[in-house]
Amino acid sequence: MLATEQKRKLLKGKDLITTADWTKEELDVALELAHEMKAQRFTHPYSECLKLKTFLMFFYNPSVRTRQSFECASNELSGSAMFLEPKAMRLKTATSAGETVEDAARVMSRYGVGIGLRILEDKIASYGEGDDLLREYAQYSDVPIISMAHDKYHPCQGLADMMGMQEHMGDVKGKTCLVYWGHGALARSWCSVQEALLLYPRYGMNIVLAHPEGYDLDPEVVEKSREFCKQTGATFTETNDPVECYKNVDIVYSRNWMSPQAYYGGELHKQEEIEKSLKYPQWICDEDKMKLTRNGKGLFIHPMPVDRGHEVSDEVCSGPRSIIVDVAENRLHAQKSVMALTMGDI
Amino acid sequence: MLATEQKRKLLKGKDLITTADWTKEELDVALELAHEMKAQRFTHPYSECLKLKTFLMFFYNPSVRTRQSFECASNELSGSAMFLEPKAMRLKTATSAGETVEDAARVMSRYGVGIGLRILEDKIASYGEGDDLLREYAQYSDVPIISMAHDKYHPCQGLADMMGMQEHMGDVKGKTCLVYWGHGALARSWCSVQEALLLYPRYGMNIVLAHPEGYDLDPEVVEKSREFCKQTGATFTETNDPVECYKNVDIVYSRNWMSPQAYYGGELHKQEEIEKSLKYPQWICDEDKMKLTRNGKGLFIHPMPVDRGHEVSDEVCSGPRSIIVDVAENRLHAQKSVMALTMGDI
Amino acid sequence: MLATEQKRKLLKGKDLITTADWTKEELDVALELAHEMKAQRFTHPYSECLKLKTFLMFFYNPSVRTRQSFECASNELSGSAMFLEPKAMRLKTATSAGETVEDAARVMSRYGVGIGLRILEDKIASYGEGDDLLREYAQYSDVPIISMAHDKYHPCQGLADMMGMQEHMGDVKGKTCLVYWGHGALARSWCSVQEALLLYPRYGMNIVLAHPEGYDLDPEVVEKSREFCKQTGATFTETNDPVECYKNVDIVYSRNWMSPQAYYGGELHKQEEIEKSLKYPQWICDEDKMKLTRNGKGLFIHPMPVDRGHEVSDEVCSGPRSIIVDVAENRLHAQKSVMALTMGDI
Repeated sequence: MLATEQKRKLLKGKDLITTADWTKEELDVALELAHEMKAQRFTHPYSECLKLKTFLMFFYNPSVRTRQSFECASNELSGSAMFLEPKAMRLKTATSAGETVEDAARVMSRYGVGIGLRILEDKIASYGEGDDLLREYAQYSDVPIISMAHDKYHPCQGLADMMGMQEHMGDVKGKTCLVYWGHGALARSWCSVQEALLLYPRYGMNIVLAHPEGYDLDPEVVEKSREFCKQTGATFTETNDPVECYKNVDIVYSRNWMSPQAYYGGELHKQEEIEKSLKYPQWICDEDKMKLTRNGKGLFIHPMPVDRGHEVSDEVCSGPRSIIVDVAENRLHAQKSVMALTMGDI
Repeated sequence: MLATEQKRKLLKGKDLITTADWTKEELDVALELAHEMKAQRFTHPYSECLKLKTFLMFFYNPSVRTRQSFECASNELSGSAMFLEPKAMRLKTATSAGETVEDAARVMSRYGVGIGLRILEDKIASYGEGDDLLREYAQYSDVPIISMAHDKYHPCQGLADMMGMQEHMGDVKGKTCLVYWGHGALARSWCSVQEALLLYPRYGMNIVLAHPEGYDLDPEVVEKSREFCKQTGATFTETNDPVECYKNVDIVYSRNWMSPQAYYGGELHKQEEIEKSLKYPQWICDEDKMKLTRNGKGLFIHPMPVDRGHEVSDEVCSGPRSIIVDVAENRLHAQKSVMALTMGDI
Repeated sequence: MLATEQKRKLLKGKDLITTADWTKEELDVALELAHEMKAQRFTHPYSECLKLKTFLMFFYNPSVRTRQSFECASNELSGSAMFLEPKAMRLKTATSAGETVEDAARVMSRYGVGIGLRILEDKIASYGEGDDLLREYAQYSDVPIISMAHDKYHPCQGLADMMGMQEHMGDVKGKTCLVYWGHGALARSWCSVQEALLLYPRYGMNIVLAHPEGYDLDPEVVEKSREFCKQTGATFTETNDPVECYKNVDIVYSRNWMSPQAYYGGELHKQEEIEKSLKYPQWICDEDKMKLTRNGKGLFIHPMPVDRGHEVSDEVCSGPRSIIVDVAENRLHAQKSVMALTMGDI
């Protein structure tokens, strides 16, 4: 058995594109350190591990929490984060001359100690392109590539979720999470819910996946989630019923996502998706449904920003069993852990 | 009597939306520390008081001095400032789904040690909305909310003004400031001049407020300024004469501001305001008028950016009795003081 | 003879608008320190020389490498860099009220320890205006003005080039550089190639300048380059032949630039320039031409971003004798050296 310090050092240089790319032991190391860093926020011994170093954050899509949490994470490790937007980069596109990913990545890895990338549904022509882009960066970069949310996955959200569930539920093994399609006016990416499906079962959680017909997620991800469930003895159930699915679950993750028909003709049809989604007003997490959860005391989790009144009622969202603000805070601690492990001098 | 250190610690966690919300003793503490920090810019014992910490700056409106001075202030206390613009935040608006102020503020206060907000005349539908927004943030945030200029007030500008006047005039008690409406092509907010009206009398300065008919400021603010004058034995005079008002004043604050008619139909009519303002070319601070000040040696103060040729002549603005650059520099020191007191480990 | 430390201190406060404004001895000091900082990237004794200090970066034009390399450079000296774009500054323009350069520069130099400026071809109405702007800032600023690339010069690129050539060629005296007009779809500024013409000969390099008829550079710069060549015994040759010029050169610098006809009627005609440029497909650096270089082993240099397929073939650009990524990395080290010398506490 390796000592804690040794296990931590083994993660140096690793990319984090989805938690599914990391072994269970690697995830344990990251989560343990994340909890440790939360407990000792400004006093942890790794607080200087990014001194003089810069983390490059490349946002194809804007964000609130992601930018704030990554930038604060860098600062709290004595490093700096650089906020870059594509308009500030002369990258080659299908229609204009510019720089290739190869050239950009090779140079960026001479300057930064890590590169974060965020690219969501509306900046791509078809599902999967964002993941391809991250893996192309990873191919040419000498420093870790960290997903700050992309079309397929959102690993740091997954880790923050898990921290929050562990804080509020203790050992999550054997607990059940309802991953629930909430209707909404935003037509959201699949990244956060897919990451949940891939990560939670590795810690032994049962999954109930509920959505209207026509709102299937990536079949490969769902298949992988089922496998992870099998490996840990957890159950995986999929249903189209908006109410029954709440029965006896321990926690509800209500989130809107777009349908597999969202892309056609080489572009995202967001407005169509929104209109289609709004036809399912019964798909909302509210107090009545929450009464069906285990002992009527199920928790509520969400990656934020919340589309209140669509995905969830104000009553549940601001209520005493909502753990969303704690989970949002955990983004900071989870990312500090990931950055310290993959980029830091520890 | 509390010792200096104890008085300083009492300000931890306080919001600063206008200096009028602070007691005179609290303002004394802030100004004294600001002068101290200017004298020991890179050597002050509080130079590490924001180490590992992040100040979140939320700019609905762009700025030059405000961003530079707050960001440098954070850096000079060993912290970091994060520059955020609303386009980078998916906040809920009247017409689009997004995040509520409640959700944004709760999470931001988990990441940052303070939140600065700037929202000026053109980002609101009626006077007072900016102030309401800051107070809504303050309601949900666990960390201090600092105004970086909003429609009603500009507290850090007021503190920087006061520092500059103390540097150039010594004790300001009994001195007279002419707060003068300069014509101009910018149709400016009321925040800086209103803050001056509220702060200067608390240090015993007499106010002469001069503007053309139809350019009244917020009557509540003017009333409060009169009260502060009474409390310190200062005088308050209001006039519509563009020249006589210069007689025997010690310092002239010439600044354009828009009329109370600027908002109607739910929006700001900036172009109309500019056209109306340009009909008063005699309302400019120039050498001829400055000769009327006390011994012909009145100082010139302005929060910058200056609209030269409208608000003030080049001759006065770049002349030997203009203290504008010193006041601009003082933004840095005043803000370092406010940040150290309200957010720092001191 | 002054000791190294003394020579270094003499550069404190100096502007860097072009390397041609610095003496050869000053350039030697900067390059020597740059190599030293590369060798001891995070351990150099000057690693804290910008502690608590802020470098203000003013980008009229966006950039990849320039922003990243300057911001990382500041961080690696324990300082901070602030990224500012003109849209965030209410500066006076020909058609709108706003702040003068005098006012902006005076105040900025109260906040920052140095000011970087970047202004390229499309933000000016005629060649030379960018250089005038930098010199106007320098007139009013009390802190160093550093060019981060402008219409005429790009001094930090020149220094990074020289570092790269010294790393790959040893002493460059007597070596020959082909400065070659590559055709392209970007119609680029003259700054990088002109800086090369001015800097390389001071280290004794021969220049071969090759471009189609009608693509002359600034005659004053070319004349100055010839003079520098004379001073060090180097040769200067100008030709319109796209192939013969490769014969026996040691290194090829292929880069597109626009023609002297690019500006007329008070604006840049970029599209016309691109169309005109694309009529010269034979002007590309490819393997066939590279075989003509000395022993067929000439190096390839370029300031990036590269317009692959126009300026240079993929084969050469990604090939074993391309030093472009090393040169890009050197931007970081060269700028750390310049910042430490002109702004740091060393």
